[in-house]
Amino acid sequence: MTRNANIRDEALAVDIRPPAVILCEPQLGENIGTAARAMANFGLVDLRLVNPRDGWPSDKARAAASRADHVIDAVQVFDSLEAAVADLSFVFATTARSREVAKPVRGPDEAAATVVGYGATGLATGYLFGRERWGLNNDEVALADEIVTLPVDPAFASLNIAQAVLVCAYEWRKTATRGALPFALDEDANPPAGKADLLRFFEHLEGALDGAGFLRPVERRPHMVRNIRNIFQKARLTDQEVKTLRGIVAALERRPSRPRKDMPPEDATDEGLLGGEGGEAGEAGEGSA
Amino acid sequence: MTRNANIRDEALAVDIRPPAVILCEPQLGENIGTAARAMANFGLVDLRLVNPRDGWPSDKARAAASRADHVIDAVQVFDSLEAAVADLSFVFATTARSREVAKPVRGPDEAAATVVGYGATGLATGYLFGRERWGLNNDEVALADEIVTLPVDPAFASLNIAQAVLVCAYEWRKTATRGALPFALDEDANPPAGKADLLRFFEHLEGALDGAGFLRPVERRPHMVRNIRNIFQKARLTDQEVKTLRGIVAALERRPSRPRKDMPPEDATDEGLLGGEGGEAGEAGEGSA
Repeated sequence: MTRNANIRDEALAVDIRPPAVILCEPQLGENIGTAARAMANFGLVDLRLVNPRDGWPSDKARAAASRADHVIDAVQVFDSLEAAVADLSFVFATTARSREVAKPVRGPDEAAATVVGYGATGLATGYLFGRERWGLNNDEVALADEIVTLPVDPAFASLNIAQAVLVCAYEWRKTATRGALPFALDEDANPPAGKADLLRFFEHLEGALDGAGFLRPVERRPHMVRNIRNIFQKARLTDQEVKTLRGIVAALERRPSRPRKDMPPEDATDEGLLGGEGGEAGEAGEGSA
Repeated sequence: MTRNANIRDEALAVDIRPPAVILCEPQLGENIGTAARAMANFGLVDLRLVNPRDGWPSDKARAAASRADHVIDAVQVFDSLEAAVADLSFVFATTARSREVAKPVRGPDEAAATVVGYGATGLATGYLFGRERWGLNNDEVALADEIVTLPVDPAFASLNIAQAVLVCAYEWRKTATRGALPFALDEDANPPAGKADLLRFFEHLEGALDGAGFLRPVERRPHMVRNIRNIFQKARLTDQEVKTLRGIVAALERRPSRPRKDMPPEDATDEGLLGGEGGEAGEAGEGSA
């Protein structure tokens, strides 16, 4: 479990009732456990098992859950799917196959919108997952309101249960939190540089390049300056980064091979500050306009 | 591998260059294999390994890939991350932790939009995933353009590599196909019933209910009829379903306990056709308006 030092409030605050996950006759404890872990990743807690083949509790499930013990501890076991869905108001059946059942087929994002909508009003919802080998039968699908399927490559469509749970849980949380990520670029610690500082850097750089004979011929200078400024504008520099760049320019200006003041600049043989010779860099500048 | 009889063309046709998946020093062959399977599910094929701990090829990886052999067979192994990304134009580093690195942090959906945008123009892109135990170091993250992270529950944030690959691959395919699902409700096989048939069913049902004394008192009849019609309108009935319902009404009209023609309807003691007695069903009808 990774704890972030700087967790965003929007990612923590989810006051929408999460859906139940119902596994119908799961065969392997490992799959129950990895499904529980996937649920925990995205804040789901209500795991229901209908007739798990190897019984319950399951050490293999707990081990595979990788510390999602709060989900494993809260597991409910039912002896029929009807009993498992009885307290729910809207149920999606997940299936990877086209069926004759005449129900709407949704993607996980559409299903999440429905489940979050009901969950926001306190209604209980659920996702129904079938057996590892052959999924759900038609009678089981008939207990659901709608079908959810994943936009897989039809040539390689089989997902294991935990993967299907993961994507449904991911879409649920993404919708419930409006996509809130657990952390973001810390803009407070990385504010963009003020334009005055940036302009001083540009002037410093351009002065150094004039000294190095890079910004020639003179009629092309405005164009080349624009292209160079655009390079650094795109980088959205912070204060510290502007300082670093000014240090770089100053250091390069001071280097031993720097053309002497008493030599005409056109005799300068050192490479241009931005790599390559003056002429080449000028061409590159043109190309990047 | 499940093949659908009725695969939708939109789900098959993806002519956008998919991103590479780069695993940096993966430790377990199983994780390489499950990552390959997740890639195959969503149409990614370019898997790159940087110094896999247990070498390559890996029987464990192939076994865990569950027949995603085309991905395993095409794996490229590199001895540095720089070499692994050299031919790419835009790289996302995945991380579950807030970092000091000043890079934009995106969700998998935003990252997919970027990668699909570049991929549509033929540019090569990639997602970089770190080691099982501790992810990527800052030098490795510095090789990437932006960071992608998942909108996990901050209290339970650790995903395994295959899960992270799965969600990124899912979002990629969803974006690349505009959410095309591999199958849908077959509207051709399940056309909605024509309104004339539906109205004949309504008249049949309402006639039967009049006969059973259900639609009373008479001043409430229009309201009750509206509510009952709404129930069946919401069900978006097909031709066949309308026929089935007419059969149901006819069968219930004929049942032995049906009030005789020579008895006044108010003496009917059988339950209303839609469950409950007339009065109760009337109340329910009111509630559902």
